[in-house]
Amino acid sequence: MSAGRLATFTVGGKTRYGAITDKGVVDLSARHAQWPTLREVIEAGALVKLAEEAEGLAADFPVEDIAYEIPVPSPEKIICVGVNYPDRNAEYKDGQAAPSNPSLFIRFPRSFVGHGASLVRPPDSSQLDYEGEIVIVIGKGGRRIAEADALGHIAALSLCNEGTIRDWVRHAKFNVTQGKNFDRSGSIGPWLVPFKDEAQIADIALTTRVNGEVRQQDRTGRMIFSFRKIINYISTFTTLVPGDVIVTGTPTGAGARFEPPIWLKPGDVIEVEAEGIGLLRNGVVDEGAGR
Amino acid sequence: MSAGRLATFTVGGKTRYGAITDKGVVDLSARHAQWPTLREVIEAGALVKLAEEAEGLAADFPVEDIAYEIPVPSPEKIICVGVNYPDRNAEYKDGQAAPSNPSLFIRFPRSFVGHGASLVRPPDSSQLDYEGEIVIVIGKGGRRIAEADALGHIAALSLCNEGTIRDWVRHAKFNVTQGKNFDRSGSIGPWLVPFKDEAQIADIALTTRVNGEVRQQDRTGRMIFSFRKIINYISTFTTLVPGDVIVTGTPTGAGARFEPPIWLKPGDVIEVEAEGIGLLRNGVVDEGAGR
Repeated sequence: MSAGRLATFTVGGKTRYGAITDKGVVDLSARHAQWPTLREVIEAGALVKLAEEAEGLAADFPVEDIAYEIPVPSPEKIICVGVNYPDRNAEYKDGQAAPSNPSLFIRFPRSFVGHGASLVRPPDSSQLDYEGEIVIVIGKGGRRIAEADALGHIAALSLCNEGTIRDWVRHAKFNVTQGKNFDRSGSIGPWLVPFKDEAQIADIALTTRVNGEVRQQDRTGRMIFSFRKIINYISTFTTLVPGDVIVTGTPTGAGARFEPPIWLKPGDVIEVEAEGIGLLRNGVVDEGAGR
Repeated sequence: MSAGRLATFTVGGKTRYGAITDKGVVDLSARHAQWPTLREVIEAGALVKLAEEAEGLAADFPVEDIAYEIPVPSPEKIICVGVNYPDRNAEYKDGQAAPSNPSLFIRFPRSFVGHGASLVRPPDSSQLDYEGEIVIVIGKGGRRIAEADALGHIAALSLCNEGTIRDWVRHAKFNVTQGKNFDRSGSIGPWLVPFKDEAQIADIALTTRVNGEVRQQDRTGRMIFSFRKIINYISTFTTLVPGDVIVTGTPTGAGARFEPPIWLKPGDVIEVEAEGIGLLRNGVVDEGAGR
């Protein structure tokens, strides 16, 4: 049973969206010109309907022919949660107690590539690092959303390799902005899985592998700040809108935490996998070396 | 001599853009349907041309009839620089040396209102604070822009009251995101002044007044990180594109720095003024109390 996998992709030089099925890729954008991107599909509340529609259609392209893009190409916001799995706070070795509110930072869409594309290591640093995370995409917008209602505001799930230039995270006095926003340093995808039921996220396994070796592994049931709490907290200060992307934090085991640290290098393959969502795979290239 | 003042505004329930002249408001959006917003005008390199065109036209609306919006309604990025005037670092009293790179954080457009609208104090905190700043808007995009070339990438100047919910800036372990992103907690405007010459920004006075009392006053010639350096540094990690907004830091004297602190309250009037750019004025209301 594929619960519906909706992706944004480029084929023949044009960016489209559609369903990734066992038969191949069903082009849904060609059939729904009223919705230019998956953001508008989400806004229209039509994600599940489109996934179901695709089941009855023949494939338009083989999967090998498409290049995945990030699923929501231009969300209004991409908000990332820091330090959200047990022992992550201790990894900082700063003697501080576990935080009472989630740390948040913002990434620009251009800091991400899609599934299958290579992360780019810039010439400014050798410290490209991975962080496997679960992504929630907002369906119904709102402000001051109660925890009890929060899951009803989720449209879909996805995965993120929240790639980080580790030394640039502490480049200045405050804030991680620059270390989290190098062009094409992270990835989101491969697709959106429509959210229907709390069981899809309540206690699923999240694993990150580098060249086949498990580096991060934990379960969402152990998150410090639950999906409900994250939506409640963020919507206290900003109005969430359809298509907003929330990246919900990474388990222990990023490359920075090894002694000595193990940074990503060209040729490495990173896989982020979560039960029921999928597997996000990316290589690494040096900037200027092509995709 | 008005060097051209281009604003985004709402009139008759519709958002438009045009020139604010001594005669009144010249509606330029009605004459240039190919550019839906000032972002596309900037992208086309047509800001100066439109300002000049407006000089020969009659006004379409009296200034009193328009409600100012933020000048670039949906920029790809709004990047803010922290701690960028002398003595600001010392205000933190944390014993740390002045930073060698600018602290950066990101704000969403919805955290700002236009000139004349009221900042909103949320029920979650009494610590609404002001920060007067100069805004540069990117005209020509680029990556790894050299300091020598940086000013050629500026399309326009504006002002910002980078309103902050002070206790929410330190709500979590890292990052100021939440305290800087309450809906309608800051302002940008009133308009864009096309950038033509380094003298427009090299050493101009920047002043913030609350209820007529000067609270912040400094000159851009004393900035720790120059406009050139800021553009160079930011473009190291992210590709700047036309319409990107950079908020360049505030002088000493925010309300948080008084003992005891002086927070903004409903009825206060905050003015941010800079030579040759203009005067940005906003009131304050409690959330839910209307504009």
